[in-house]
Amino acid sequence: MNYIGIDIGGTNLKAGLVDEDGLLLAVKTMKIREVSDPDALTDTLVALTRELAQEGGVPMEEIASVGAGVPGVVDIRTGSIVYTCNLPLRNIPLRKLFKRRLGLHLYVENDANCAALAEFHAGAGQGSKRFVTITLGTGIGAGIIHNGKIFHGGNGMAGEVGHTCIDYQGLPCPCGRRGCWEQYASASALKRFTAQAQLGNPDSILARVIREHDGHVSGQSAFMAARLGDPVGQQVCDMYVGYLAAGIANVVNIFQPDTLAIGGGVSNESDEQLLHPLQQLVERETIPCSAGKKTRIVKAQLGNQAGIIGAALLGKKKRI
Amino acid sequence: MNYIGIDIGGTNLKAGLVDEDGLLLAVKTMKIREVSDPDALTDTLVALTRELAQEGGVPMEEIASVGAGVPGVVDIRTGSIVYTCNLPLRNIPLRKLFKRRLGLHLYVENDANCAALAEFHAGAGQGSKRFVTITLGTGIGAGIIHNGKIFHGGNGMAGEVGHTCIDYQGLPCPCGRRGCWEQYASASALKRFTAQAQLGNPDSILARVIREHDGHVSGQSAFMAARLGDPVGQQVCDMYVGYLAAGIANVVNIFQPDTLAIGGGVSNESDEQLLHPLQQLVERETIPCSAGKKTRIVKAQLGNQAGIIGAALLGKKKRI
Repeated sequence: MNYIGIDIGGTNLKAGLVDEDGLLLAVKTMKIREVSDPDALTDTLVALTRELAQEGGVPMEEIASVGAGVPGVVDIRTGSIVYTCNLPLRNIPLRKLFKRRLGLHLYVENDANCAALAEFHAGAGQGSKRFVTITLGTGIGAGIIHNGKIFHGGNGMAGEVGHTCIDYQGLPCPCGRRGCWEQYASASALKRFTAQAQLGNPDSILARVIREHDGHVSGQSAFMAARLGDPVGQQVCDMYVGYLAAGIANVVNIFQPDTLAIGGGVSNESDEQLLHPLQQLVERETIPCSAGKKTRIVKAQLGNQAGIIGAALLGKKKRI
Repeated sequence: MNYIGIDIGGTNLKAGLVDEDGLLLAVKTMKIREVSDPDALTDTLVALTRELAQEGGVPMEEIASVGAGVPGVVDIRTGSIVYTCNLPLRNIPLRKLFKRRLGLHLYVENDANCAALAEFHAGAGQGSKRFVTITLGTGIGAGIIHNGKIFHGGNGMAGEVGHTCIDYQGLPCPCGRRGCWEQYASASALKRFTAQAQLGNPDSILARVIREHDGHVSGQSAFMAARLGDPVGQQVCDMYVGYLAAGIANVVNIFQPDTLAIGGGVSNESDEQLLHPLQQLVERETIPCSAGKKTRIVKAQLGNQAGIIGAALLGKKKRI
C-alpha cells in the first residue's frame, strides 16, 4: 500500500506520496485558496490527494490513508484542528470533512510530531526506541517519540519544550511567559542576536557580510563571519550555541532519549561550528551516565520533507 | 496478598506492610548497620521483612513481593542500585542478594518514583492517567506517571526536572550545571533565601522569628514571619513561589499531566500562602488550554509514608 502525507503551511500545502518504507515517490505543492474556510481547505486536500495518486501512477484503492501535519494543536482522536498560532484555523473537524468527500481516512497530527515520526522511521532516529527532534525555525518545534510512540500528554499538547523558561525573568515571549527557550535558541533568536551584534559593531566582518547580502540578516550571517575569522561573528555563534545547549541538556535530563536530532535551516551549519561544540556543552551539562546509555546528538536527515513523510507515516504506524 | 515496601534512607530503613488497596497495615524503622556493605544491607532488608510480617500477623506465604525505594539511580530490570548521590551505594545487585536469602522477589526503584506511584494509586493522583509529584526537600525529586506507568526514559534516569536550567548562567549546582531549578525551589533553597534575608534585615520580624527558634532557619521561618505581617518574610515567600511556579510551569508545558502534586515539608504551608499563589502563577505561565484539560495543581496526600507505600506497590503494579 501507499500513503499520502500533507504538510499544511502558511500559504502552501505540500504533499507527498510515500511507500511502505517511508520512501518519497512523488511530491506536489498547492497554494491554499482560502485557508480559513474549512470547505475550501478540504477541497484542496482532496484535490492534492487525487493529483498526487495520479502523478505517482497509483490507483486510489492503493492509498491506505492520508495524514495531515498542522502547525498547532490538534485532537488526534477526532482528527480535528483545535488551534494554530500562525494560521486562522480553529476547531475544524478535518477528518470528518475529508472522509465525506473522498472516503479515505485522514490522520491529523502536529507538524513537529510528524517530523519526529519521519526521522524516527526513515531518518536520524532509526534504531532508537526513544527519540527527540528539535526543529530550529521561527520558534522551536519539538517532537518526542517515547517507546516508539508520539508523546502526546494528557491533552495532546505535551512536549512544548520551546516554551520552558531557561532564563528566569528573561525576554518576554508571545506565549505570555518570560525567558522561554525559543526566545534564545530559535532561528529567529539567532537572527536577532546577529542584528544586534551588527549594530554594535558596524566595522566588523559580520557587518560587512550582511552588507554584501543586501543588508539581509540571516541565520547564516554569524557563522559565515566566524568562518572568516571575525570575533564578533564568533561571539554570536558561541552565545547561540550556549543557549541551544542549555535547552537541549534540559530535554536530555528529562527524557534521556537514545538519540536527539536537531533540524531546521540552522542545523545545516558545519559540524565544526555547530554540532561539535553543541555536543561538548550538552555532555558537560547533563547528568553523567555510562557511555553506552548517553544520548547521541545528531543532525536530522530528512530536511524539509520530514513533515510530509511523517504525516504519511501516521497511517502506516497505526497499521503495524 | 500483602506487599512490603522499604524506603532506604540515609541512616534509617523505613518499611511498611501494605494490603491490596495500598493501605498501610504496619510500619517499622531500623537503623542500617553498615549501609556500604551489600551483605549487611541485605541482612537488614531481610530482617525488616520478617519482623514486619510477624508484627502484621501475616504469614510469609502471603507476602507477594517486596519493593525498595532508593535515593538514586537504579536498574529496574536487574533490581540493582547503580548509584546514589548521598549514600555510599554503588552497583549493588540487591534483588539477587535478597532472593538468595529469603526467596522473595524484590523490586528496586528510585524513591521519587515510589512516592509518585503511591500518590497515583492511593493519594493525590487517584483517577489521573498522567500524574507528576514534585517533592521539595534537600533537592527536588520528581516522579512522573505517564499513561499509568512510571516514566523511566531510555536509561532509567529520565525525569530529572530538578536539574533543568531555569536561570541561564545562574547559581552553580553540584551536578555541574548552572541555574538548576533545585537551586531555587528546593527546601534548601528556601532556607538559603531566608538566611540571606535575615542577614540583610536584622531588625525584621523574620530575624525575630528565627531568634525565637534558637537561631534555627527552617523552611517555615519566612512563611511564619509573613503571617505576622512582615514584608521581608513576604518577599522571601514571593520569590520562592515565583521560582517554584517557573519550574512547575515548565513541567506542565512538557508533560501536560492531569494532576501535579507537590510534596515535602514545604507543601504543608497554608493554601493561602503557598498553593493558591502557586496555582495562579502556573495558570498564567502555561500554554492556554480548555478548562477541562488544565493540569490540577494539588498537595500530595501521603506525606512521609508515600515512599514505603509506593515501594510496596511496585510488586502489585506488575501483577495487575
